Amino acid sequence: MNQEHISSAFDRDLEAIQALMVKMGGLVEAAILDGSKAVTTRDVELAENVRKGDKVIDDLEERINEEAARTIALRAPVSSDLRVVLSVLKLSASLERIGDYARNLAKRTEVLAELRPVSGPDKALKRMAKEVQRMLKDTLDAYVRRDAALAEDVRQRDEEVDEMYNALFREFLTFMMEDPRNITACMHLHFIAKNVERMGDLVTNMAEQVIYVVTGEMPDDGRPKSDETAFISGET
Amino acid sequence: MNQEHISSAFDRDLEAIQALMVKMGGLVEAAILDGSKAVTTRDVELAENVRKGDKVIDDLEERINEEAARTIALRAPVSSDLRVVLSVLKLSASLERIGDYARNLAKRTEVLAELRPVSGPDKALKRMAKEVQRMLKDTLDAYVRRDAALAEDVRQRDEEVDEMYNALFREFLTFMMEDPRNITACMHLHFIAKNVERMGDLVTNMAEQVIYVVTGEMPDDGRPKSDETAFISGET
Repeated sequence: MNQEHISSAFDRDLEAIQALMVKMGGLVEAAILDGSKAVTTRDVELAENVRKGDKVIDDLEERINEEAARTIALRAPVSSDLRVVLSVLKLSASLERIGDYARNLAKRTEVLAELRPVSGPDKALKRMAKEVQRMLKDTLDAYVRRDAALAEDVRQRDEEVDEMYNALFREFLTFMMEDPRNITACMHLHFIAKNVERMGDLVTNMAEQVIYVVTGEMPDDGRPKSDETAFISGET
Repeated sequence: MNQEHISSAFDRDLEAIQALMVKMGGLVEAAILDGSKAVTTRDVELAENVRKGDKVIDDLEERINEEAARTIALRAPVSSDLRVVLSVLKLSASLERIGDYARNLAKRTEVLAELRPVSGPDKALKRMAKEVQRMLKDTLDAYVRRDAALAEDVRQRDEEVDEMYNALFREFLTFMMEDPRNITACMHLHFIAKNVERMGDLVTNMAEQVIYVVTGEMPDDGRPKSDETAFISGET
């Protein structure tokens, strides 16, 4: 068995694992869109589908973990090959968590359907989720094409998501102060907005992981951070 | 170089990595307690220390990642040895996230110090954080002693944390409806309570990982889940 044979066996293994991850990524993208659609249109049936679909995402992560461990054990990859396999583990762990957040959105659908509608924020929420889904799509494309510039672009776009979230937080405060009957719904909607913002953070971590795979270095922490609501007192 | 020599070199590497993780765990435990103390006593200075300390935690995770990759590359561990190394990666990733949540608590201290005090929930918040810190301590002990029963115990205790969170959520709704001037503070306090509840979930994931290391199998999902506020409409 010569060296060339060993490395092409590794390449085949890696391709199979990457294919699983890309599949997982596609399901998570759909979960983000469906989860946000369910909750903003109060579509209880769609929400139920998202919750069921999360099981499939979790199973895929487990399979990726197993395949990666098997590949490491069998092929004993070193340096950049090992880095790629370990990165796939990190990326799929992030995907799994984004899937959980999408399921969390879906979970709130039923209770929101019972509450007094506060429809103002629905559009902004959907727009935010759509942007996060696009960022995820670009991150996966960047991974497949080993495109560090595209990953860097995603990283910068997280700032927009953070800004959307900050604007929504202020809006929720206003709605609640205007009319206490809005309080419960706004608490749930705030929870949803924060979940979407967290998804954006996770996608950003993934983009940084892609940059690490391509360049061998984690990007400097030059990224403008993040949730400013920690500093919003609402009392000016 | 005989087999015995190889495996004891692996053991030494693993011990060094595990020592780093236990050190990281101790810092994260302290961050949970200090973060919750800072925010409940509005101690801005302590909050600043927690924020600075998070950098040390992040650096430790990076070092563990590097050491683990080096060990895998150098020692090519298989089966249960490989499982242990990969688990350390997962455990330290969870620790890093718990550290981030503790830093998030600390971040809210300043804004809360400026707001109208809503002191009722402070005690419950501190109690919740204390319980999560204890769960983390037991999880790390369970890992070091390879004690699956203790890890299972931690897993069950997460339910109490979830109940504390659910009770707090209801309390916040009441405070806000009673007096709209409480709204902003309660939004921040809810955020804090949710962060502590998430820390509990992460510790629970860690406990499951410990069970996996010891027994080779992930526990069934028999654990009673979790955040019930998704179903609280507040309109009864």
